[in-house]
Amino acid sequence: MIAREEPATTFARRHIGPSSRDIAAMLETVGAKSLEALMNEALPPSIRQKTPLDLGEGFSETEVLTHMQALAAQNQPLTSLIGQGYSGTILPAVIQRNILENPAWYTAYTPYQPEISQGRLEALFNFQTMICDLTGLDVANASLLDEATAAAEAMALAERASSVKTKAFFVDHEVHPQTLAVLRTRAEPLGWTLVTGDPLHDLDKADVFGAVLQYPGTSGVVRDLRPAIAAIKAKGGLAVVAADLLALTLLTSPGVLGADIAIGSAQRFGVPMGYGGPHAAYMAVCNALKRLLPGRLVGLSVDSRGTPAYRLALQTREQHIRREKATSNICTAQVLLAVISSMYAVYHGPEGLAQIARTVHRHTATLAAGLTRLGFAPLNSTAFDTLTVNAGERQSEIVKRASSQGINLRINADGTLGIALDELTIEETVEALWRAFGATWSYADVEAHAPDLLPADLKRKTAYLTHPVFHEHRSETELLRYMRKLSDRDLALDRAMIPLGSCTMKLNATTEMIPLTWAAFANLHPFAPPEQAEGYFTLFENFEEWLLDITGYDAISLQPNSGAQGEYAGLLAIRGYHAARGESHRTVCLIPSSAHGTNPASANMAGMDVVVVACDARGDVDVDDLRTKSTQHADRLAAIMITYPSTHGVFEERIREICDIVHGHGGQVYLDGANMNAQVGLSRPGDYGADVSHLNLHKTFCIPHGGGGPGMGPIGVKAHLAPFLPGHPAIDDATPSAVGPVSAAPFGSASILTISYIYILMMGSEGLKRATEVAILNANYIAQRLDPHFPVLYRNVKGRVAHECIIDPRALKAKTGVTVDDIAKRLIDYGFHAPTMSFPVPGTLMIEPTESESKAELDRFCDAMIAIRQEIAEIEAGRWKVEASPLRHAPHTAHDIADDAWSRPYSRAQGCFPSGSSRSDKYWCPVGRVDNAYGDRNLVCSCPPVEDYAQAAE
Amino acid sequence: MIAREEPATTFARRHIGPSSRDIAAMLETVGAKSLEALMNEALPPSIRQKTPLDLGEGFSETEVLTHMQALAAQNQPLTSLIGQGYSGTILPAVIQRNILENPAWYTAYTPYQPEISQGRLEALFNFQTMICDLTGLDVANASLLDEATAAAEAMALAERASSVKTKAFFVDHEVHPQTLAVLRTRAEPLGWTLVTGDPLHDLDKADVFGAVLQYPGTSGVVRDLRPAIAAIKAKGGLAVVAADLLALTLLTSPGVLGADIAIGSAQRFGVPMGYGGPHAAYMAVCNALKRLLPGRLVGLSVDSRGTPAYRLALQTREQHIRREKATSNICTAQVLLAVISSMYAVYHGPEGLAQIARTVHRHTATLAAGLTRLGFAPLNSTAFDTLTVNAGERQSEIVKRASSQGINLRINADGTLGIALDELTIEETVEALWRAFGATWSYADVEAHAPDLLPADLKRKTAYLTHPVFHEHRSETELLRYMRKLSDRDLALDRAMIPLGSCTMKLNATTEMIPLTWAAFANLHPFAPPEQAEGYFTLFENFEEWLLDITGYDAISLQPNSGAQGEYAGLLAIRGYHAARGESHRTVCLIPSSAHGTNPASANMAGMDVVVVACDARGDVDVDDLRTKSTQHADRLAAIMITYPSTHGVFEERIREICDIVHGHGGQVYLDGANMNAQVGLSRPGDYGADVSHLNLHKTFCIPHGGGGPGMGPIGVKAHLAPFLPGHPAIDDATPSAVGPVSAAPFGSASILTISYIYILMMGSEGLKRATEVAILNANYIAQRLDPHFPVLYRNVKGRVAHECIIDPRALKAKTGVTVDDIAKRLIDYGFHAPTMSFPVPGTLMIEPTESESKAELDRFCDAMIAIRQEIAEIEAGRWKVEASPLRHAPHTAHDIADDAWSRPYSRAQGCFPSGSSRSDKYWCPVGRVDNAYGDRNLVCSCPPVEDYAQAAE
Repeated sequence: MIAREEPATTFARRHIGPSSRDIAAMLETVGAKSLEALMNEALPPSIRQKTPLDLGEGFSETEVLTHMQALAAQNQPLTSLIGQGYSGTILPAVIQRNILENPAWYTAYTPYQPEISQGRLEALFNFQTMICDLTGLDVANASLLDEATAAAEAMALAERASSVKTKAFFVDHEVHPQTLAVLRTRAEPLGWTLVTGDPLHDLDKADVFGAVLQYPGTSGVVRDLRPAIAAIKAKGGLAVVAADLLALTLLTSPGVLGADIAIGSAQRFGVPMGYGGPHAAYMAVCNALKRLLPGRLVGLSVDSRGTPAYRLALQTREQHIRREKATSNICTAQVLLAVISSMYAVYHGPEGLAQIARTVHRHTATLAAGLTRLGFAPLNSTAFDTLTVNAGERQSEIVKRASSQGINLRINADGTLGIALDELTIEETVEALWRAFGATWSYADVEAHAPDLLPADLKRKTAYLTHPVFHEHRSETELLRYMRKLSDRDLALDRAMIPLGSCTMKLNATTEMIPLTWAAFANLHPFAPPEQAEGYFTLFENFEEWLLDITGYDAISLQPNSGAQGEYAGLLAIRGYHAARGESHRTVCLIPSSAHGTNPASANMAGMDVVVVACDARGDVDVDDLRTKSTQHADRLAAIMITYPSTHGVFEERIREICDIVHGHGGQVYLDGANMNAQVGLSRPGDYGADVSHLNLHKTFCIPHGGGGPGMGPIGVKAHLAPFLPGHPAIDDATPSAVGPVSAAPFGSASILTISYIYILMMGSEGLKRATEVAILNANYIAQRLDPHFPVLYRNVKGRVAHECIIDPRALKAKTGVTVDDIAKRLIDYGFHAPTMSFPVPGTLMIEPTESESKAELDRFCDAMIAIRQEIAEIEAGRWKVEASPLRHAPHTAHDIADDAWSRPYSRAQGCFPSGSSRSDKYWCPVGRVDNAYGDRNLVCSCPPVEDYAQAAE
Repeated sequence: MIAREEPATTFARRHIGPSSRDIAAMLETVGAKSLEALMNEALPPSIRQKTPLDLGEGFSETEVLTHMQALAAQNQPLTSLIGQGYSGTILPAVIQRNILENPAWYTAYTPYQPEISQGRLEALFNFQTMICDLTGLDVANASLLDEATAAAEAMALAERASSVKTKAFFVDHEVHPQTLAVLRTRAEPLGWTLVTGDPLHDLDKADVFGAVLQYPGTSGVVRDLRPAIAAIKAKGGLAVVAADLLALTLLTSPGVLGADIAIGSAQRFGVPMGYGGPHAAYMAVCNALKRLLPGRLVGLSVDSRGTPAYRLALQTREQHIRREKATSNICTAQVLLAVISSMYAVYHGPEGLAQIARTVHRHTATLAAGLTRLGFAPLNSTAFDTLTVNAGERQSEIVKRASSQGINLRINADGTLGIALDELTIEETVEALWRAFGATWSYADVEAHAPDLLPADLKRKTAYLTHPVFHEHRSETELLRYMRKLSDRDLALDRAMIPLGSCTMKLNATTEMIPLTWAAFANLHPFAPPEQAEGYFTLFENFEEWLLDITGYDAISLQPNSGAQGEYAGLLAIRGYHAARGESHRTVCLIPSSAHGTNPASANMAGMDVVVVACDARGDVDVDDLRTKSTQHADRLAAIMITYPSTHGVFEERIREICDIVHGHGGQVYLDGANMNAQVGLSRPGDYGADVSHLNLHKTFCIPHGGGGPGMGPIGVKAHLAPFLPGHPAIDDATPSAVGPVSAAPFGSASILTISYIYILMMGSEGLKRATEVAILNANYIAQRLDPHFPVLYRNVKGRVAHECIIDPRALKAKTGVTVDDIAKRLIDYGFHAPTMSFPVPGTLMIEPTESESKAELDRFCDAMIAIRQEIAEIEAGRWKVEASPLRHAPHTAHDIADDAWSRPYSRAQGCFPSGSSRSDKYWCPVGRVDNAYGDRNLVCSCPPVEDYAQAAE
């Protein structure tokens, strides 16, 4: 008989997978009387929060959209010609609906499992090709967070790669101000100094390991940077050029100018400004630097049948290998946004992009001619899309008149005005600008006599986007099918559970995703006047208040754009705090051996010295060792970084004691919030001893993973650290903050905050708490079901795990040779994404189900794992050799199955249809197991030149 | 070397598949110097339009959305409590985004090819199950156009099935007025009379073949209809109950009450009102009537491996078999909307639906209690969600006060007011209503003492939606995956060309799809005061003006909801015209033998007598025969129905002459606009002799096919027919129109007119003309490429086809036994939907590529066809027996391929990967060839009761 279900009266019921009836059954399986009883066993009583959350009842989906419309109405998305790295752009509707608003794309995970990620890997490969082509450099990564942090990463790369001993870095006075500010933040803890000036004049005197030059400059000027680049390189420094991609369609590329590194933003390739983000920044480097490139890099390799297959190249990034010696803690790419920008280029092609650029430039040239006629000749005589004008005393009058016509201008501190045109600019915009300056002219009249402003000797001569992919999708039908084809190759949350430990792949509800593409949230420039963003400010205020309630902290910064950036900002706050107390010598950061590699990398970037603390046999922090190390380094103790519940998936009993020990020795507690999904509504870091945490909004608070980004990593701090939260020149009215910005935009990727905001609003206090309880129940249920087959490695004293569990097949490997890889790839045949492999314990699998998975899906997954265990038993029994087993041959492609020559000891059907659900709705992996070593030996990270295709065809 | 592409500066470039370079290459292939030269060969010069279209330049996608926002701002979507068959409802965001806004669903075609349609067939099967369960009847179809036409279909069914000789039909005085009006329109040409009255009193005297009763009544009253039903049946008449689905969750079902037929609307199950539509109506019948059920019916059968598989049951509908004897011309179901409603039920489940119903009812009961206290006791003492109140002199004051609070009430001609509550009603709504009547009360106070208004003896006792599908998808994650799973089983335009002759499967551009889900278009009640719909009226005016320019007609009606309904309305206009001239005896309708079966069916419904005109060897109308028949029937000649270009895919030379002959004998020319995509911008029916045409907006004007609906079939007429366009009681202010309504809503499915409107606006005059030219080029290109392999059956005198072509494999069948089915199913292995099979010529295939397919896709399709021809050659050569060939075994499923026992004369890879594109991105058909005969013999059209599952499991 079919179980009757309670009706779905709340959003929480839609968000949480198991029904009440399922929960009852699962509690029975795990041997707990109630959810509350299970929580009492999973969490130490000492950390349980005393009072419930104060977030009220959850809104319905209808109510929340009404509320968001009210917030939206408080925003005014004017025509922002502020420039400074952010431009108006048109996101083609077909891309918006079928990528940005399509769960097949936005719910995908980072493509660590290449076999089930070929679609987005190809899109990222296109992105890299586009960046390489436009910048004229050899290797581009799969994107970075924003232009300012990309500049900081480039500086760090230059420092590492340069042969120069000096610790100074040159920054072009034409660099965007927020880039300079982020560079300052980054340089300071590392003891590097910044030298600013005119690269065409001031470089000779400078003794630097590198320089960053803006092209075109922030004022709009288009300079021939060749002499400056030559000067830097002559001294052994590295030349970084921050370049505008649209301008590069018409201008000589940084590579041809001689640059070693190019960075910048791909925002204006179809990604809405979103009041700061998210969008994809880029970095490209010359061949010599490719193995130092931070971030993610997609490369081409081959699969088990020799078919070309994409995968993340050089995947063991430096924070994993080098840990506390790493100069970058970047984990994320802005995958979803990079994919959008790549599709924008695929759709427009080189001719389309060049035409957009030429149109923008003609508008700019015409605007300049009119302004000159009016007596406001731009200060820059060369330009692509931006003009700087000295309006003198009339500045405020002009700004006001522009504003009354719905146009924002850039107001510079030196009294000049900036005007940056973009894809949205039409002739009427230019006429409106003239009116703001006092003239009523017709566009056509002025245009006829307006000379181009691009320097003739910088006109681009090299081709770009010559690969067929940028030529074959010019009709909407073709593009739609291409996007569908790619998405079909991938396995995302819209098809199956993604049981990744520590990644919290929960529901990204549709309603949460709706407002971010509304014009009122999407089309605000991050430096627009704050009075045009009142809806955003209301949202920030409410959201911060809720996060404070959830975490027990006293202040929040929404600026960090990723978890890693949150760690970094948090450590900078600790650093600032010690310094303000005259204790700048406190630089020792204790980190348990189980920590994620990002922790020590962040510590290093914050100028700290990492001391590793041991773990005990249970996987918990070895408190004795902690005490010893704390005592030993008491004078210099800055902080401990600890993840809670631990990366071992357990609520350690002694967390309060750990915090006390560190505090007792003058240190601060950085509590990594990656596992906050196990705590919301149950315990608050701010209550049991932590001083600062980041919150992965893309984990606990439902921002989708986007195939590997965007993320958001706001930090919460106790009151004493509040003065040391990151500032930003755009919002620090009078005095600069104690700690500079870590992101280009003051509120990071503001537009996607709407997602987490809506989530909290719809769940309410009760819903959030229940979600946490069910997340813990789901993990314990899986642990219970799988333990007889794959032992669960760590549990707490009461035998419970937290919201995830590690299972340990190492003994089986010793006996049969079956690796954790074999199990992970075999799961693909069953239609599942693999759990986290070999982190934090090599050779094991970490599983986090989240609260959103139903009992039926958990059972489907457990059944698959148990079936795999039975397959291993065949090897144990000697019936299959491991090399010939379906485990080693996994994943099975249709091509494997269709091969008439089949000599394996198992049947084709056993290979590809190992379970009921794979039989009825099979996910077919487009490639077989990918050869990573081959790809790293033969690094190909962008589309080969067209000639290669022609040759291959012959 | 890669061809350089022109940049995409216009939407037309995005809509039209081939680039300029492709067009040049294709013109060379077909041997034409230019597009214009090709047009001069394809079309008779005599019909070419003299002046270009006057639609201006195309808007950009950005501009058009700005324009639509301005229109939207002119609409006011108030809270409409007007009822009358339309209710506010909540479309869950996850369904909106992933079905209504997802091209995988909305670009699919009618599921004639069941193997590639299993997803939507399952969703429709769920719909049928839901309807059967709620109505308590045995068989439900896959939906109808709207409740009023469903009532008319039920009347026709009753007339055919009843043993009573009389031609009268009883209509409950509680039937919605628009239903009565549509019944009148339908009855009149057929010579049936309608008797209206109170079924509980007036039925005894009535001598009728059936009756339609409304449950609950339009006034809101909930009557026990058992005595009335018994009375009808006792006389041999059929009892039709028009029932509200939400009410049925609480009320005894029509089936239990004894009804033979139930009809109604599924709109309130998640489908926005859309100012009239589209939404899905339903019809369910008792077992005895199942083979008379009009519309589409999904049934369960088995595939070649015995796996259960869905397909359209009893597919040869009566208009195909009975042609001019058919009592229904229904071709369409409202598939997309039926799918949405079914998913609404899947998501809420029986408990959720009942809870919504109980909440609506409690609000209604509370409202009634308050009104009673105020001295406005509702006239109906029983109710589900609707109350009728006699407001006396205070009517206009109350209406005004309600309106000032944003609420529309129903204003009845008899001075009473109707108030219908719905899923959107909240306590504040009820309080606002009381305020309109003069009281300021709190909801809770009144609610506590408000008795339920459902009659105790009508409370539902039977279960519904017991099938697991209505219980397993209560979380958003589960529902999302279910919808994804179903859509993945289907092949729609987002994956491949759908080369269906006469169906015009062109691009449904994303931008065209955006505004229809905006609240300002989606949430208007069709009978809301016109001043709240000014945006719609502006749209209607512009749109009609454009259609007049395109067709050369003088007036347009936007009311018909489908092409077939357009035919019917057009013939009614002709009928009305003759009658007004005192020539009611003109009832002969000439129809060429090649006509679509819908033509004679429509003629029959319009009270005409069909005379068939022969075709000649070229496939053209035999003009001599036409002349003979016209002369022979000159006295009684009413009309000719002719499709142009013909269903044979050719512009007949003598169309003007044909029109002249008919006119010469006093007849009117109905020109079927199904093939208008070959004419827009090139020729206008109104110019060369036609008097009336319908326009399939879902073909020529980009409304997506939605997997089999919705459609729209507005008609254009010359001035003399304008007075006979369908009227509607809701808009005919003073005097009723000469011809009554054919649809429930005055402007049919108004909300999707936005799609066609945007299409025309973005294409502009030039774009539309070029689209037509390229559609014709694409067809001629295919004809040219395929003719050497499969002869093209019909061409015009210059050897050209129009926008489609028929290829003829009959000789091959004679030689090898390969059927047209074999070819169609084999195309699935190549990743294509089959062309139209055996229409208009049995044993042939009709191919229409449309302008949206690129040369690359046309080539991929032609290559597949040529490869299939080569496979047939293997049979000709005796290397394969047809029974063992991949053609007969097509489509190949993964299960076929994975079968270790493979004894076919071709390899597995030949079976499933016959071409390059199938190798790299294979569409895997979920089932093998479906056995239609088995399914029709063993008709199963709704989910079996749960007990069967339990048994099967044992």
